[in-house]
Amino acid sequence: MQKQEALERLHKIDQDIKHLDQVSALLQWDQETYMPSAAVEGRSEQLALLEGIKHEKFTDPEIGKLLEQLASDDKDLPDIERDFLRVFRKQYNRAIALPADLVTEAARAEGLSQAAWVEARKNNDYKTFIPHLEKMIGYAKKKAEYWGYSGHPYDGLLDIYEPGMTESVIEGVFVPLRDRLARLVQRIGEKPAPRSDFLSREFPVDLQAQFGEQVMKDLSYDFTQGRLDISAHPFTTTLGPRDVRITTRYFPQNMLSGLFSIIHESGHALYEMGFADHIRDTSLGDGASMGIHESQSRLWENVVGRSYAFWKGQYARLQGLFQSQLTDVSLDVFYAAVNRVQPSLIRVDADEVTYSLHVILRFELERKLFSGDLSVADLPEAWNTMMYAILGVRPDSDANGVLQDVHWSMGAFGYFPSYALGNLYGLQLWETLKAQNPNTERHIEQKNYVPVLEWLRSNVHIHGCRYEPGDLILRVTGRPLSAEPFIHYLEQKYGQLYSL
Amino acid sequence: MQKQEALERLHKIDQDIKHLDQVSALLQWDQETYMPSAAVEGRSEQLALLEGIKHEKFTDPEIGKLLEQLASDDKDLPDIERDFLRVFRKQYNRAIALPADLVTEAARAEGLSQAAWVEARKNNDYKTFIPHLEKMIGYAKKKAEYWGYSGHPYDGLLDIYEPGMTESVIEGVFVPLRDRLARLVQRIGEKPAPRSDFLSREFPVDLQAQFGEQVMKDLSYDFTQGRLDISAHPFTTTLGPRDVRITTRYFPQNMLSGLFSIIHESGHALYEMGFADHIRDTSLGDGASMGIHESQSRLWENVVGRSYAFWKGQYARLQGLFQSQLTDVSLDVFYAAVNRVQPSLIRVDADEVTYSLHVILRFELERKLFSGDLSVADLPEAWNTMMYAILGVRPDSDANGVLQDVHWSMGAFGYFPSYALGNLYGLQLWETLKAQNPNTERHIEQKNYVPVLEWLRSNVHIHGCRYEPGDLILRVTGRPLSAEPFIHYLEQKYGQLYSL
Repeated sequence: MQKQEALERLHKIDQDIKHLDQVSALLQWDQETYMPSAAVEGRSEQLALLEGIKHEKFTDPEIGKLLEQLASDDKDLPDIERDFLRVFRKQYNRAIALPADLVTEAARAEGLSQAAWVEARKNNDYKTFIPHLEKMIGYAKKKAEYWGYSGHPYDGLLDIYEPGMTESVIEGVFVPLRDRLARLVQRIGEKPAPRSDFLSREFPVDLQAQFGEQVMKDLSYDFTQGRLDISAHPFTTTLGPRDVRITTRYFPQNMLSGLFSIIHESGHALYEMGFADHIRDTSLGDGASMGIHESQSRLWENVVGRSYAFWKGQYARLQGLFQSQLTDVSLDVFYAAVNRVQPSLIRVDADEVTYSLHVILRFELERKLFSGDLSVADLPEAWNTMMYAILGVRPDSDANGVLQDVHWSMGAFGYFPSYALGNLYGLQLWETLKAQNPNTERHIEQKNYVPVLEWLRSNVHIHGCRYEPGDLILRVTGRPLSAEPFIHYLEQKYGQLYSL
Repeated sequence: MQKQEALERLHKIDQDIKHLDQVSALLQWDQETYMPSAAVEGRSEQLALLEGIKHEKFTDPEIGKLLEQLASDDKDLPDIERDFLRVFRKQYNRAIALPADLVTEAARAEGLSQAAWVEARKNNDYKTFIPHLEKMIGYAKKKAEYWGYSGHPYDGLLDIYEPGMTESVIEGVFVPLRDRLARLVQRIGEKPAPRSDFLSREFPVDLQAQFGEQVMKDLSYDFTQGRLDISAHPFTTTLGPRDVRITTRYFPQNMLSGLFSIIHESGHALYEMGFADHIRDTSLGDGASMGIHESQSRLWENVVGRSYAFWKGQYARLQGLFQSQLTDVSLDVFYAAVNRVQPSLIRVDADEVTYSLHVILRFELERKLFSGDLSVADLPEAWNTMMYAILGVRPDSDANGVLQDVHWSMGAFGYFPSYALGNLYGLQLWETLKAQNPNTERHIEQKNYVPVLEWLRSNVHIHGCRYEPGDLILRVTGRPLSAEPFIHYLEQKYGQLYSL
């Protein structure tokens, strides 16, 4: 077979797999939004069938033969094809590396583990979860061995979520970040808390939706290529090359929650909507990493959405919609409330300053679990002790401590760091963007977010996953991964807010 | 391979195909309800991929080998398995009968034909559609040859929609039905039209939806296993063993349209929801035929939903919701308006009396097109002449005449008869039901539709497509297909309404 022919065939296979993923995404979207309750069992069988078909397509020996004919470093091929081959080959190698028995066995154990976690959390009974967590760690270690790694086994897992990232690189930025964040939180804690009583007033849900949708339009979210719906947990999902949908949920007495979920998910969606046309329906049409994806959602949610400039532009409209609720609340008071810092037990409820500390805690515990320095039985005590050390709060229960997240019960180790890396990448990008566009703040004040989006589009979105996150950040910002811009941003912003 | 093993394997294949159909149904449902507009191209690629996967699974030579081991008349097998084998074998034989070239070629021509029909209808330009329609008839004839038939080629097409049905059987009931219906319409036309001005008053859409959903609940539509949504054209679709959704659309100035679509589609949905548990996720979990499906939707829509007893039970609530619109409208006046007979040009807008005449017209023209007694060029004139002869109206344009339906442009010949057969089956069933349940009317007056549903469930729904429509009707009513109960019902009902 000619090289060109082989490449075309590989692209066809790639597209079929992509389309199967999109179909599965629709099944899941529907399950979270509109599906009637009794349909859940049938839906999981449909998803399993598609998963099986995808696996069959992906592990077809034909792919191996095609890849043998096509070298990722073939100088005759255009850059984009070499990038495609690299990304496809990596996915393929990961798919075929694991013995089928292990995959089936681990999937079954995962199902049991998740069910056990749900029960353990409900009953605040960590002990019943111990054997499952031990098994999950065991499977993760085995998988890491099959996938291979150069440094620690943990690197083999990290690579799923952050291609090219290693434990030692993360450690190098997380440890100093932890100390400086903890100090910042402590200093803020010594100051009086800003007023925030008005946030728990009654905000009618239909008006919240109206405001949220207007913000989405302001952010250039394209409603001909997506939708906003309601689900128990907000998420973004891509159902086709021109179909990127988000969800949120509204609480009448917590207006900020629904709105900032909308901005966060819009950030994810704008990324997916921004892949170059010729890669969006291929394996390259994906986020560079979980961390880069989070950098986009968090940049829009926090750096833009919680900025003074943003609310200077948007607050009059918000006040217009919620006249009785916000009549006695000035822009400055609202801005301070939106950025209230409050150490708390639950990661997903954490503010911009404390959030990364929740993540670093998980990273440190994961490492110890994988190096053997911490046993599963001793995990809750280690969690609680570290929580108190870095955030000054101590869980009242394991349900509100070590059992709060679903990730470990699913064997998703190495995932957590991406959340905090997103903050770091985001501020590195933001610093560069601002240096190149000094009028950014003024534009945001005028509700003109186009320059920010355009910059992110042409520097980040358009590339999809052509570059690994480390390369992308270096390429765009001229610097390797660094926590400096993030911590600098926080110290400046919260220094002002809390008169530190 | 052991017989039992072969059967289990076949069931697994059958279930996979069923699940793929369900997934495709979700993709289509989403496309008609919530999908963003720009996603349409990607969606059609996803659907084509699934179609290809399904075709691959269905034409796997393994199936042929399994079927060789398993005889449909094997007395060692339970009845249900023999029925399964018969239905599955028939589907399989139909799928493999056509040469791949013909399928591809016909599918492409079908796409062009549908597009040409859309244009021709829009421009009222039948001539441009002629070559496409000729091609569609040609492909249909070819397919019928491959599938085989005992009498006329048209029987080979009928069998897709009405297994076991033949042209001569239909002719035997349709011709006398046509004459008696035409006479009834004429007699009604000599009487003054009932008052119906109030139907075009403004009925707020949200109240229409509220009433429609309540009616669905009254009819025992199970919202844990389905939903009501809005789409351009009402439809029912089954997305899983416990997921049967319907759609409608509302017109503020035509309250009856949205409501009767809801009742009609609920009739389809109740059928699908009523398949026995052990067959619902198999090939047997399907309507016995298009006509039997229509019998269910039309029975609920017309025989129940347009009955005096129904409105005696429901009218107070409707009047309560639409006080200003219906304050001057008594139950009797409303009932008469709901059943107004008015010969018109468009099938889908036709009333209960004239509807079947629209269908019979199409059946007679289809037969002539297939026997060669009518050329495609002469079709419009034949249409208009027959329309005038049986309904007393003459199309002002081909757009409102021969070009009004999508079916022929898709090559779906032999489909139309099912609509009228549905009326006949429905009244045959209804006559038997009433004979066995003399209190039916009183129950309906009390908004208690459970006895009707229970009877349909245990006599019709539960069997899925285990029996061919002719066998099912004979089995349940003790009589073969007959138009008598239908025409008798109409003559009685409309004799009273119009004082004939």
